[in-house]
Order: sequence, then structure tokens, then C-alpha cells
Amino acid sequence: MANFRGHALPGTFFILFGLWWSVKYVLKYHNRRLNKNSHGNRYMNYVEIIEGAVKVTCSLIGILAEQFVPDGPHLHLYGGDPEGWVKLMNWQHSTMYMFFGLSGVMDIFTYSSTKVPKGLDRLMLSIAIFVEGFLFYFHVSHRPMLDQRIHSLLLTAVFGGAASTLLEVFLRDNIILELFRSSLSLLQGTWFFQIGFVLFPPWGGPGWDEADHDNMMFIPMCFCWHYAMAILILAVNYTLVYWCLQKYGKNSGETEIKLGIRKQQREKSFHDALLNGSDEE
Amino acid sequence: MANFRGHALPGTFFILFGLWWSVKYVLKYHNRRLNKNSHGNRYMNYVEIIEGAVKVTCSLIGILAEQFVPDGPHLHLYGGDPEGWVKLMNWQHSTMYMFFGLSGVMDIFTYSSTKVPKGLDRLMLSIAIFVEGFLFYFHVSHRPMLDQRIHSLLLTAVFGGAASTLLEVFLRDNIILELFRSSLSLLQGTWFFQIGFVLFPPWGGPGWDEADHDNMMFIPMCFCWHYAMAILILAVNYTLVYWCLQKYGKNSGETEIKLGIRKQQREKSFHDALLNGSDEE
Amino acid sequence: MANFRGHALPGTFFILFGLWWSVKYVLKYHNRRLNKNSHGNRYMNYVEIIEGAVKVTCSLIGILAEQFVPDGPHLHLYGGDPEGWVKLMNWQHSTMYMFFGLSGVMDIFTYSSTKVPKGLDRLMLSIAIFVEGFLFYFHVSHRPMLDQRIHSLLLTAVFGGAASTLLEVFLRDNIILELFRSSLSLLQGTWFFQIGFVLFPPWGGPGWDEADHDNMMFIPMCFCWHYAMAILILAVNYTLVYWCLQKYGKNSGETEIKLGIRKQQREKSFHDALLNGSDEE
Amino acid sequence: MANFRGHALPGTFFILFGLWWSVKYVLKYHNRRLNKNSHGNRYMNYVEIIEGAVKVTCSLIGILAEQFVPDGPHLHLYGGDPEGWVKLMNWQHSTMYMFFGLSGVMDIFTYSSTKVPKGLDRLMLSIAIFVEGFLFYFHVSHRPMLDQRIHSLLLTAVFGGAASTLLEVFLRDNIILELFRSSLSLLQGTWFFQIGFVLFPPWGGPGWDEADHDNMMFIPMCFCWHYAMAILILAVNYTLVYWCLQKYGKNSGETEIKLGIRKQQREKSFHDALLNGSDEE
Repeated sequence: MANFRGHALPGTFFILFGLWWSVKYVLKYHNRRLNKNSHGNRYMNYVEIIEGAVKVTCSLIGILAEQFVPDGPHLHLYGGDPEGWVKLMNWQHSTMYMFFGLSGVMDIFTYSSTKVPKGLDRLMLSIAIFVEGFLFYFHVSHRPMLDQRIHSLLLTAVFGGAASTLLEVFLRDNIILELFRSSLSLLQGTWFFQIGFVLFPPWGGPGWDEADHDNMMFIPMCFCWHYAMAILILAVNYTLVYWCLQKYGKNSGETEIKLGIRKQQREKSFHDALLNGSDEE
Repeated sequence: MANFRGHALPGTFFILFGLWWSVKYVLKYHNRRLNKNSHGNRYMNYVEIIEGAVKVTCSLIGILAEQFVPDGPHLHLYGGDPEGWVKLMNWQHSTMYMFFGLSGVMDIFTYSSTKVPKGLDRLMLSIAIFVEGFLFYFHVSHRPMLDQRIHSLLLTAVFGGAASTLLEVFLRDNIILELFRSSLSLLQGTWFFQIGFVLFPPWGGPGWDEADHDNMMFIPMCFCWHYAMAILILAVNYTLVYWCLQKYGKNSGETEIKLGIRKQQREKSFHDALLNGSDEE
Repeated sequence: MANFRGHALPGTFFILFGLWWSVKYVLKYHNRRLNKNSHGNRYMNYVEIIEGAVKVTCSLIGILAEQFVPDGPHLHLYGGDPEGWVKLMNWQHSTMYMFFGLSGVMDIFTYSSTKVPKGLDRLMLSIAIFVEGFLFYFHVSHRPMLDQRIHSLLLTAVFGGAASTLLEVFLRDNIILELFRSSLSLLQGTWFFQIGFVLFPPWGGPGWDEADHDNMMFIPMCFCWHYAMAILILAVNYTLVYWCLQKYGKNSGETEIKLGIRKQQREKSFHDALLNGSDEE
Repeated sequence: MANFRGHALPGTFFILFGLWWSVKYVLKYHNRRLNKNSHGNRYMNYVEIIEGAVKVTCSLIGILAEQFVPDGPHLHLYGGDPEGWVKLMNWQHSTMYMFFGLSGVMDIFTYSSTKVPKGLDRLMLSIAIFVEGFLFYFHVSHRPMLDQRIHSLLLTAVFGGAASTLLEVFLRDNIILELFRSSLSLLQGTWFFQIGFVLFPPWGGPGWDEADHDNMMFIPMCFCWHYAMAILILAVNYTLVYWCLQKYGKNSGETEIKLGIRKQQREKSFHDALLNGSDEE
């Protein structure tokens, strides 16, 4: 939908996922670092499955919104008088949402069954992000310069995200890549809002002057500022999560450590038993 | 050949190979997962050699078809009156087929001899796919816009496939990369048919309107739908193969497990023998 | 600032960092090679933190210079009469400096706390370099040809540096990548000076003829010569550092070796004790 | 030099190096495979140093040829009447040769001293190849279409070679990458001759018609044929080297095996001595 809400909807999705990812991956990272054979992994699987389900839901909302807004195609692809393709713009957006939905489905399969090879979830997410960029690329031709540039800046974040997610297929559980993905998701989200504000100001009135060279110069710099902000948000999140883990995770942490010591002792005595033939065990 | 059959022929080849690969690699993957030191590897080698031979045969069919159709060059490269290159289009297609043939030959060598380093087969396949894209790239200049775009979309699948196959040189037996290659092969196959239907409808009549902007917008989206379909086909194939392995592989599976247990027992007793000096072994 | 000093300032920064890096990494490399469990690592951490602080300082100097030169924007972004963006050029340069500042801050965090994952410092540096290139890319459109080309050559060094630094996230402490980064930093630095001399000769007078085709041909070759010089400087530095280590590092080296021998002896006797039940230890 | 000989000279260098590499790396590969702790490595070092010296010599020949041909710049860079750059074309070619010379120097250093980190030789070679492509890229603008295309095809081989050599920094002694590099070197060599034949036929007469669209179509296909030929040459070389190793390497091979067995025996008895306290050793 070529209006403010059509940009705010995906923007909200990307921001929420960016924030959620930054929390989830920092939690997992510190979990891995503190207690290696954590039993938290089992619960983590459920969390991932729920994340997949949320992804599917968001995609369905997006598709339905694109199809059934008053000026949407209402699932008609070809027709009208004279005959022709119906509202291709909305169909393109639906396609983008669909691929993110597929990625959600793949998440559910990957984490609910051991028969599906790990890594397919990241590959599918990478493909979904790539398809988004791919369609955007063809989307923006034949538009005013400012419109083109503001959308093609998005492509930097999109293709960067696709490449980094593809790397995650091979370098799984790499905190750097995961934080990078979170930051690019935040960037995409806030930039969608920026596009909305620039082209379709929600308080009415015309968009920015699309022919002004200075606007063209300001936009790339503004994009970098958005990214600086995304990095700042990540840093704050990282600190908060770490601080919470320190404060509220203490009791469970102590228990873990005690358990760990006891476990060591038992292993030791088992070891002794093996060596000395004693019946301590 | 710039007609429907000229696109249907390679399309069929790519679809058949895509389907076959998706079956083969899933089988190999579950084989690796279930019984690690499988004796199936020996038979696998023969299968790979046969695959190479089939590749060579397909390439020969393609070359012969391009050369000896009624309006083909019949192996003449330069001549005519006035003198000039003869039917360069067909020669270019023949070159593409030839490189796939070389890849087949390399498959045969790699799997029939231990003196040829593993990985050369993937490198050669990657080169063959790259050459296909390389020639297509120069192929489509000076054509109508729609024709150009519909062919350059193919390049995404082609260069993606070349890159992913190149990765397989270094990350051999990676199920993710193998499934990705299968999916791109399916995509290429079905897209060749799509090109045929759009530019040379087999039921006669003119092709699509090459100047219509909406057609230009529809084509990239349609390409993504083809890929979604390829993913779906792969998912179905994966499930079927797994289900067949479960059902028909049970007996042999049980045998394997029994053998495995017996083997463990023998190893155990051997271990005991070593420790206790007993003569059980 | 579109004058000689505006190019000399970042040029100086890049040259200084290039020289410093070439010394630091060669030192670290020979340290790693000679004594593996060196206690020099603790001091190294302080050095890295100081490096981060210097980076932040340089960035602040750069930002202040860009903002508060007589014809700078003095922190005004939008205004004037008629209303419009104020001195976007200077704002862009400030943004570039800011990202290098962020990279310095990340250095400080990464090396002063074990809670921050190693590798984030390199990622942030890579992002800072990428942002520099990204802004330069949009920066130079609508300028004379020679100006465009001389700036876009810089992009080769910039994007090469960003890619190589990104690799360092995954291949940490790789001397090859570190020397490569140093060389590209030197290249950027000397090229900034070259740009200054070509476009704004410090002795006054006009810049080079921007329409002359031969100038356009000379510039890329000159860029290669700069790189050859950067390699030469690195080679000299490498030799000097190695020679100093040999000469002045001898005493401490001998001590190290003696300590190493004594340590080996103690380990050996500990080993004997374990085997023979003797009470040497 | 824009004549046949100016293309034949580098062409010959590339062909000779391609052939030599294909022999050297196949020898090394089979050596590694047959006897792991070969004492051939010491001689190999000398070979590498000689290779470096040959590279330096070839580069010097190239530079001298470019500078001192009758219509060369004779080391004058700026001058003439009216003042201007002198024969930039020849200077560019000299620069390319110089970087290959630097790569030779680096080879000598890397293999003659253990203080220089392994991998710098490949990085320098990769840079030399990249610089070649970089200068070619700017070299060909403002030329007729056919001239541009025939040179930019070369860029495919050049940048492919630079990328694959860069990979070798991290994946050293990978036979696949080494053979790939050899094949691209052969391709460059034969293509230089092709350029010479097309643009400056050595038997006099005009070059090919630069405006003919069919020529433009033939050239990329011809490039692929050259590569097929390069692959064929490599295959023949590989077979010949293997066959020679089998035939003439037998005696030394047997000796190696005998030595290997004796060594094993000594190690075994040493092992026994350690365990049993016997004085067999």
C-alpha cells in the first residue's frame, strides 16, 4: 500500500523482531558462557517454535492487509476492463510477506523435529530477506529520484542482512552475526517509518520535494544516523539483559554452581572407584 | 533455438536433475545420520558415475539438437554469402551444453579413480553453470526489454547456483548446500518453461506484449512464485524419501541395529578382555 | 571541508594509524611466535584501550573541525533563508568521523570487559569504514569527472578495508589480514593528500585540468604507485621492528628461555613423580 | 604497446607460468599423498625461490620492453611540447609488470626466511593480479566496442584469478585452487594472443570489423572455448605428470617405502623400550 500505514506495518514488525532478537541472542550467549551444559536448551526450542508461529502470524496479517484494504486486489490477479494485471504493487508486497511466512514455517519444522537438518531455518530466512530485496529492486524503477534512492538505501540493509544470515548457516550460534542481524532488522524497521514520513507524511500535506538535490544528499546521511541509533539501542539492550541476568539469575546461578560441584565430586569418586576398585560409588 | 522447444529441452533437463538431486542427497543425508560407517558408499560411487554418464548424454542430445535442427548451423561456423558467422545463437547454446558435458566427464573421472582429487567435480560443475550465465549475459543484449528481463532473472538462479556449487568444493557433503542447489536447478527448469510460454506460446499466437510495463512488473514476482513452488516440491520430496526410508528401510535398519548392538558387545568384551586378562575373546 | 586542510586532516589520521598498526601487529606476531604463553597480553589490553581512546579523540577533533571552521554549519542542520539543509558536506564528514568514534568506544569496551564478545570491535571498525565508503559513494555524484574518479578510487581502498576487517571478525589475529589492513590505511592516508594536492593545491593556483583525458588516465596508475609505496613502507617497518626485537629483546628473551627451561624441568619432574611415585616434587 | 608483440609478450609469460604451475602443483599433490613426511620439501623451497627470481626477471623484461621500444616513453613521465603526460599506456603496462615483480620479490622473501609469515606471497600475487585488472578496467574506456569487450572478457579471468589466489592465503596447499589458478593463467595467456590476432593481425591487414554485431557475439563464446582448451591442457598435463611419477618415481618410491618401514620399526622398538625398560634401542 503506497501510504503511511503500508510502511508502518512492516516497520513495526522489523523493529519488534530486532528488539526481540537482541534480547534472545544475548540471553543465549551469556547462558552458553556461564553454564555450558545448560538444561535451558529444551525450553529454548519451544521459544524458537513460538517465534516461528509469530512470524507466520505476522506474515498472514501483512498478506491480508495488502489484499483486503479497500483499494487492494481482493485476491484478483488478472482481470478488469480492459483486461490487465490487478494491483501488482499489493501482490508484490504479499509475495514478500509470504516468503517470511515460509521462513516461519521452516523455523517450526527445524526446531520441532530432529529429522530436519539445522541450518535450513537460517537459509530460508536468508532467502526470505533476499526475495524482499530482489522485489524491491525491480519495484522502484520508473519512480521519482528521491523515492528511488530512499528505497534503494533500504536494499543495503536488506542484502547485508541476507548475506549475514546466509553466513549463519555455516557459523551457527555466532553472537556477532546474530547481533549484526538484529541491528539490521532495527535499521530496516526505523527506515520504513522514515520512508513513510518522507513520502506520505501522516499529518497530511505533501511529501518532501523530490527534485531537491539537498534532500538527495541528506537521505544517505540520515540512513547512517538511523544505524547509529540501532547500534545504541542494541548496546542499551545488551547492558540491560546482562544486568538482569546478574541480579535475578543469581539464585539459580548459585544452584547451578552447587550442582556442578556436586556433579564433579560424584564424577571424581566414580573415577576413584574405577581406579582403586573401591565401592564408594 | 529461439522457439518453445529450444527452451523446453534444457528446462526438462534441469527439472529432472533437480528432482533426482533432491532424492539422492536426502537419501545420503539420512544414510550418514543413521549408520555412520555405511557400506552403501561403494554403491554410491557407481550411482555418481552413472549420473555423470547421463549428464554427458543429455549434453550430447542438446548439442545435436542445436546443431541439426532444420534451421541450425550443421557444424558450419563461418561461411555463407556474404561471408559471416553462421547461427551464433545455436553455437552459443552448444557451448553451454558442452561445458555441462565436461562436468559429466569430470564426475566420471572423479568417482572412478582415487587419483583425481575430490572437489574437482564440483568445481567443474560450478564452472559449467557459470559459463551458462556468462554466455546468457552477453546473449540478451540488443533484445526487447521484456525478453532481456525474463532472461536476466534466470541469471540470478544461475549465478546463485554457481556460487553455491563453488562453496561445495570446500564444504563437501553439506546437505544445506545440496538442497539449495537442487532448488535452484528446479527453479531454472521451470523458468525455462515460463520463458517458452511467454515468448513463444506453444499453442501459437503472439507472445506477451513486450512493451507493457505491467508485464515487466509481473515477471520478477512470478519468478519468486516459481521458487516458492520449487521449495514446496523439495519439501514434499524430502518427506516422501524420509517416509520410504522409515517404511522399507526398517528391515535392513533393524538388521543394522542388531549388528550394531552385537558389534558393541564384541567391542565391550574385547575391552574387558584387555582390562581383565580374561580369554572371553 | 572542500579545501586542502579538509583532506590533510583525515589523511594524517589514516597514515598515523597505518604506521602504528604495522608496528603493533608485527610486534604481536613475533611475540606469539617466540613465546606462546606470554604475559605480555595483559599489557597489550591496555595498549588496545589507549588506541581506542586515541581513535575517539581523533574523531572528536575531526567533528569539531568540520563543524566550527568559519564556513562550517556550527551544529545547525536545517534553517537559513530560504529554509534548507545547512552545509550538508560538513555534516556528512562529521558522520564519518562519528562512526570511527563509535569504533573507538567499542574498542574500549571490548578490551576492558570480558563480558563483551571479542570480534565486536572489528565488526564496528568494519562498519565505520563501510559507512565512510557508503557516504563517499553518494557524495561524489554531480561533480566533475576527475573529481569523481579521484574519489571513487578511494572507494577501492575503503571497501577493500571494510571487507578485510570483516574477515578479521572470524579470523582473529591473522597477521596477513592485519598487515593488509595497515597497508590500506596507509594508502587511504596518502591518497587523501594526493586528492588535496590535485584539487586544491596548497600553494594556491588552480587544481589540475578536470577535463583532460590524460589526467583521467594518470590518476588510476598513480593510485597503484601509492599502494606500491605503502607496501614498501610496511616492508621497512616490518624489518625495523624485527631487528629491534632481535637486538633489544635479547635479555628479556633469554630470561624467557631460561624460565621456559626451568618450567619444562618442573613439568618433567612432576611427570616422573606421577609415574614413579617418587617424592621429587 | 598497442601492437601484436605487446600482447604476445605477456601472453607468453602467462602461458609458461600456467604450464609450469600445473606441473608443479600436481607433483606436490602426489608427493603429499604418497609420502607424508617427505624430505622433498627442502628442495621445494629452492624451487619456489627460483620461481620468484624468474618472475622478477620476466617483469624486468616487460618493463624494459615497454619503456625502451622505439615509440616508448624512455622513462620520461611528464614533458614534451606542449607539456603533458608521456605515453601513459606504456607506463600503465610497466606498472602492471612492476606489481608482478613485487610478487616475485615477496616469493623470494617468504621462502628464504622463516621470519616472513607464509601467505604473504599469495596475498602479494593476488594484489598483483588485482592491480592488473584494476588498470585494465580504466584502460579500455573511450575505445571502440569490440576492443572494450575483448579486454573486459580478460577481466573475468583476471578478477577470478585474484579472488582464487586470495582464497589460497587461507586455504594453502589446496590442489583445487592451485589447478584453478593454473587454468586461469593459461586462459589469460591464450586470450592475450587472441586479442593480438583480432586487433593487430601479425600478417598485416586490418583488424576485425569493430562495429559488426556478430563479432561482438562471437567473442564471448570464443573466450569460453579458450577456457575449455585450458582445461584440456591441464588434464593432459595432470595425466602425464602422474604417469611419469608412476614410471620413473618407482625406485625412489620403493626406497621411500623401505625407509618408512625401517623408521616404523625403530619407532616401535623405541616404544617398547619405553614401556618395558628393555635395552633393544
